This record gives sequence, structure tokens and C-alpha cells, in this order.
Amino acid sequence: MVTMLHEGGVCSPQGFLAAGIRAGIKASGNLDLALLKSEIPARCFAVFTTNKVKAAPVLYDREVLENSEHISAVLINSGNANACTGTQGFADAAQMASLTENALELSPKSMLVCSTGIIGRMLPMDKIEAAIPQIVTELNENGSEAFGKAILTTDLALKSMALELRTEAGSVRIGGACKGSGMIHPNMATMLAFITTDILLPSDFQAEFKASIADSFNAITVDGDTSTNDTCILLSNGASGINFLDLSISEQSDFRRALATLMQELAKCIVRDGEGATKLIELRVEKAETHADALQMARFIGTSNLAKCAMFGEDPNWGRILSSAGSSGVNMSAEHTDLYFGDVLVLAGGRPTECDMNALHAVVRQKEYKVTLVLNMGDAAASAFTCDLSYDYVKINAEYTT
Amino acid sequence: MVTMLHEGGVCSPQGFLAAGIRAGIKASGNLDLALLKSEIPARCFAVFTTNKVKAAPVLYDREVLENSEHISAVLINSGNANACTGTQGFADAAQMASLTENALELSPKSMLVCSTGIIGRMLPMDKIEAAIPQIVTELNENGSEAFGKAILTTDLALKSMALELRTEAGSVRIGGACKGSGMIHPNMATMLAFITTDILLPSDFQAEFKASIADSFNAITVDGDTSTNDTCILLSNGASGINFLDLSISEQSDFRRALATLMQELAKCIVRDGEGATKLIELRVEKAETHADALQMARFIGTSNLAKCAMFGEDPNWGRILSSAGSSGVNMSAEHTDLYFGDVLVLAGGRPTECDMNALHAVVRQKEYKVTLVLNMGDAAASAFTCDLSYDYVKINAEYTT
Repeated sequence: MVTMLHEGGVCSPQGFLAAGIRAGIKASGNLDLALLKSEIPARCFAVFTTNKVKAAPVLYDREVLENSEHISAVLINSGNANACTGTQGFADAAQMASLTENALELSPKSMLVCSTGIIGRMLPMDKIEAAIPQIVTELNENGSEAFGKAILTTDLALKSMALELRTEAGSVRIGGACKGSGMIHPNMATMLAFITTDILLPSDFQAEFKASIADSFNAITVDGDTSTNDTCILLSNGASGINFLDLSISEQSDFRRALATLMQELAKCIVRDGEGATKLIELRVEKAETHADALQMARFIGTSNLAKCAMFGEDPNWGRILSSAGSSGVNMSAEHTDLYFGDVLVLAGGRPTECDMNALHAVVRQKEYKVTLVLNMGDAAASAFTCDLSYDYVKINAEYTT
Repeated sequence: MVTMLHEGGVCSPQGFLAAGIRAGIKASGNLDLALLKSEIPARCFAVFTTNKVKAAPVLYDREVLENSEHISAVLINSGNANACTGTQGFADAAQMASLTENALELSPKSMLVCSTGIIGRMLPMDKIEAAIPQIVTELNENGSEAFGKAILTTDLALKSMALELRTEAGSVRIGGACKGSGMIHPNMATMLAFITTDILLPSDFQAEFKASIADSFNAITVDGDTSTNDTCILLSNGASGINFLDLSISEQSDFRRALATLMQELAKCIVRDGEGATKLIELRVEKAETHADALQMARFIGTSNLAKCAMFGEDPNWGRILSSAGSSGVNMSAEHTDLYFGDVLVLAGGRPTECDMNALHAVVRQKEYKVTLVLNMGDAAASAFTCDLSYDYVKINAEYTT
């Protein structure tokens, strides 16, 4: 039913164009300006950072979306976060949008803007203004890769993919690109994700989109920090001619699962590419009282430096996992808890087992593995994804001097 | 009024004896059994870990304190946490207490026990049983240092001190010793603190003791983890003949301040001795809406890996401090926030200042400095103390293989 597309991205669904160019914002000379456009206005669902310190583009986009649920384009710059830039920063965000709307012949307030990069510096508006006419002319159906590269900051790898779902009425596609929360340079920030689909989603899909984010982009952690710019945008333009509400119940479920899969796979790409990361670990909490409990505990363990150092050191250190679980704020009882590394049961009912140490060491030497806590408190389960804490994380984050 | 005592510790107040010996629990051969005794039963105030996974001695002590507010002794072993050891672990904790009560000719359930060290291994009860008669004979008035050393696990430095407060009615003393939350070996855990005083405190002093912990041992963070064994005990034996309730109001305030100072200085010793720590940073939040808000934000920033790596790298990275503050869950407004490194104002009303970069670099190159966030939301303030995140932290916590 669902097929991953080769070299897929935000342009894989019908009716989307994209481009990525050099505007000269990054000193490195790498791609730093990205544009995504839907040929017809797309219904937009968006989730922004919960950080009390919100960057100017986040404030601007929220204002735009208060008055319109349809969006025709998103312009993203990397290399400068436009955060802590006051009223001038907000004016710059509005100006970025306005210049692009003019160049695309769109009506005012019909598009969004995003920024990622250094905090506390003014956007080089001269460079952005000069680059906008060029990026508009470069919009094309094969722009996924350039788009995906231009939104990166310190990421090492392109994070772009797409999949196709066959339904009775025809095929629909979902594409996406994201950038990670790795922060190589000081003041670098931000997780940005852009999801496109050519199905027409109902206007009340926001709650489902938020739920998908909880189990994907919000279920990953590199260092537990929430940035000033985090943004996740879903554009649904209906260009396939297929309406979500016309699908059968089971096809609707298939679509939800496909969307969740794409978002979770993109999220895992971010963790794999976390600063200094050498491993991707799934922390699974099962038989919790509620899904929220399971997710909270899994995420909490995922931010434990002690647990993450042990993962880096390939040490099957279940004491740190259990201790972290106990301090997560979630109701649990050590005497009822089982703990697995991969398939190896190391703790049963709160007591250490006589497990096969060779098998246990083989698990923690893998590049990717799963740690499962079974609380035996209820029926809910959730996963979080984390990376290990390595020397390189410290190196990357300490050895820069402003 | 208040004098720090040279080489002071838990025996500095009148009527306290202590000892520390080798029982053979630690493979290193270091001191690993400590005993503290009050010549007359002391009123006991205690705060235990909030971790849902509580070690056996924590469960045992809570049971004892449910039936008695007076305690005559505390036996502590290091090298083994007696955590995740099930019903046998609880029986072992009770047996440690019972054997010591017999040797000291105390009535049953009149003393407490603490453990710190590896999680998930049974206590070597044969070694502990054999050592108890010896440690009882070694109890003496000069035992502060041996006691302070025997409670350590991976700490590098003894954390022991005492002070004297002169009142109209005579002098009272407060002594203390603690061990850190550094976890060099896997499954090592725990902050333990023991405070003694020869003043007689009223039985409702528990709330004030908890408040002092909030601003001292709970205001420090090395890695944000709460252990299975964390315990803080205050013993008040009244051996000075002075009753807290007979002091004047201003003398009562002096005592509270002296107790708070001793506890905060002990807590700072833990941070200075944090694993791999090269710096001690005070994170001060001022003009917050509530004290709880200020403390929550200060502690949250203190656990930010990004901020802690920047401290290690001597990078005056105010963007990370502000971003972390914004994600602390505390109400704030970036536009009203001022931020200082030492005395250097780097952010005023949410906008970067044109500060003297040389002065700023001089601040972050210090071994100890203060970062102050002024929220301009209210009148409350609080501090948290943290260390930097260094290569050695990762090394210490990753390079051990079980």
C-alpha cells in the first residue's frame, strides 16, 4: 500500500515547487535560502516552539495563520535565526514575506517565513532582498534536494524523503524535509520540518497533526533543549484530486499511519545526525497508565546524561535507566518493572536477572537498538528516540569561541 | 556572630561522636563504613529522594521515622547502594540497624541507615556485620574527618565543615558532611548529607529544614539526575543547653541564616567536585513572579548541556542561557529581560547590548562566576549552582565497562 519514493522530498506530491540557493548569509558559502511553493493555496497546519523566547518569524507566522488557513509558500533562510532581534526583527520577517509575495504575485499575508542560525544578530536584509528574485525563478518540480540542503545549518546530512499511498480513488503522496537540533556553533538553534501532501485534508486535522508531532519530532531528543525557532509546517493542497474525507475509514487510518511513519523517519534522521552522535536508541515504555505517562518517561530517560554517556561507552547500564525512570515524575513501582536491552531481560519485577552477559554486550555494541521498560501499570505505550552523549558533543559545543 | 570552625565537621557540636573505617565493601580498600552517634537521642529531621525507585535504606528510615522523631545514631556504608535489591535488601538494611543498635546498647528502631554505591547488588552483610563491633569502639569526638571520608564514593574531596553562632545564652554549633552526586562508576549514585547541631530545635522545624534544602542541596545540579538514595538528615540534640524557642527573634533568624549558609556551602562543595567539573557557576534569577519560578528557571538552565558546554569552552554564550530560560516552563517575556555575565550587561530588554567584549571574556574565564537573569516580572529571586560539562564528564561516565 505504502511505497517509499527514491530521492523523494517536498516536491514529490503534485503541485509543489521548491528551490534552494546561496544568498550569502552563511559565511561558509553553503546554500542558505529555500523556497517552497504550492501551485494552488494549500491548507496549512503548523506547530511552533513552546519556548517563551520566540523568534520573529514564529511571531509573524502565528499572526498570519490567525487570519488565514491557506498558505501558498514558505521562505526559509539558514545562518541567522532572527531571534532576540526586537521590533526590527519582526519587521524584517514581514519584509521577507512581502518581497517574496510580490515576486510570486501572491496576495499579502499568504505565505510564511522561517529562520534558523545565530541568535541575536540582525538579518542581512540586503542579501535576502537581492536573492529573492533569483530563488523565485529557480522554483521547479525537482527542487526537493536543493530545498532540503538550504534549510540545514550544522547538520551533516540531507533529511528529505517521500512516500506514496495507493487508495481506491488513486495515489496520494506525502513528502518532507527537516533540519536538526544540533547546535555546532553557539547560538545555533532549531528544528524545522516541512511536510507536503497532495491529498486534501479537513480543516480540523490540526489535532491529528499535533498528535503525530508528539510521537515524532517531539519524541526525539539530542540535548533536551527547545529552541526559539522550532517550527513544523504541513501543507495540504489537494492537487491529487483526492479528499481525505472521501476515503474509507481504513484508508484514512492508512493515511494517518503513512504520515506518522514519514514524520517519525524524518525525526530519526535528526537524532542519527545529532551532534557527536554515534548511536540511535529507541527508549520504549510499555504498560504505562497513560500514553502521556509513557511518552514523558521515555523522553525523560532520553535526556539523562548518565544514561547517554553509558550508551556511548557501550555499557549496559540498566541502573541508570531505572533510576532515571524513577525520577521522571511518572507513577511507577520498581517492584513491578521489567527492563529489556534489545531482547535481553535484565530486570524482572525490580530484581536483576541472571542474564547472558555476552548477549547483553552484543546489544549495546549495535549502532541502533531498543531499550524497553515494562511498567505493568496499564495498557499504554510510547517511544522516544535519543542519541548517545560523546566527546564530540562536548567538543562541538565548547570549542567555539565568539 | 558566626564563625567558621577550622577543620569542623559533624562532631563539632557538643554531644556527637563519629567514626569511619574500612569494612572491605569497596574494592579500592578505601574507608567505606561511617557511624554518627549522638550521646543523647537527637530530634531528627529528614528529607529523602523523590525518585519513585527508592533504595532499601530509604524505605527503612522512613518507616523508623514514622514512629519516632528521635534518633540516636546513623550508620552509613559506601560502595553499595542497596537499591533494586527487593525484600532481601530491606531485610539487610534492618539488619544493619539492628546489629548496630545491639552494639551501641540502643533500643530497637532508634537509629537510621544509609547506603551509597552500586545499584542492583546485594550488600556484603558478612563484611558489614564483622565491621560493626570495630566501628562502635572507634567512635570519638574527633571522628569528623574519618566519618566524612567514609561516606564518599567517587568524590575527590572531603566535604566537611562546621560553624559557631554566638547568642545571648551562649554558643551553639552546626556541623555537617556530605557526599556528591558524581557517578564515576556505573550505577553509582546519591547525594547524602548529615547535619548536626547542639541547639534544641522545635519539632515543627521540618518545614524550615525543607526550605533550606530547596536553596542548597536541591539548588545544585551536576547532571540533573535524582538518585535512588538521596538523603539529607539533620540531628538536633540540645547538648548546648540552648533551646531555639528561647532565642530572640533576631537570634532565631541568625540561626536560620547560619544553617542555610552551612548547607549552601556544603552543596557548593558538591558542585565544585562534580564529575569533570572545571567551573562553579551561580545562576541567579531575579525579579521573577515567585520564588518557585526563580528557582525552577535557575535549576533548568543549570541542566542545559548547551549552556554547560559553553561554560566549559569559556564562551559567553548568552543566547543559550536565554533560550534555556524560555523553555524552563516559567512565565517570562524576552522583551523585558536583562542578562548579566558577572557585572557585564549583555542583554537589556531583550536586545543585545554593545558590551565590552574583553570584560565579558574576563568573566567567563574565571573559575567561579555568576550569571544573572532579571525577568522584571515581580520581586522574587533564587539561585542555582551548576558546573560545566567537560570532556572528563563524558570520559568518566562512558569509559567504564561492566
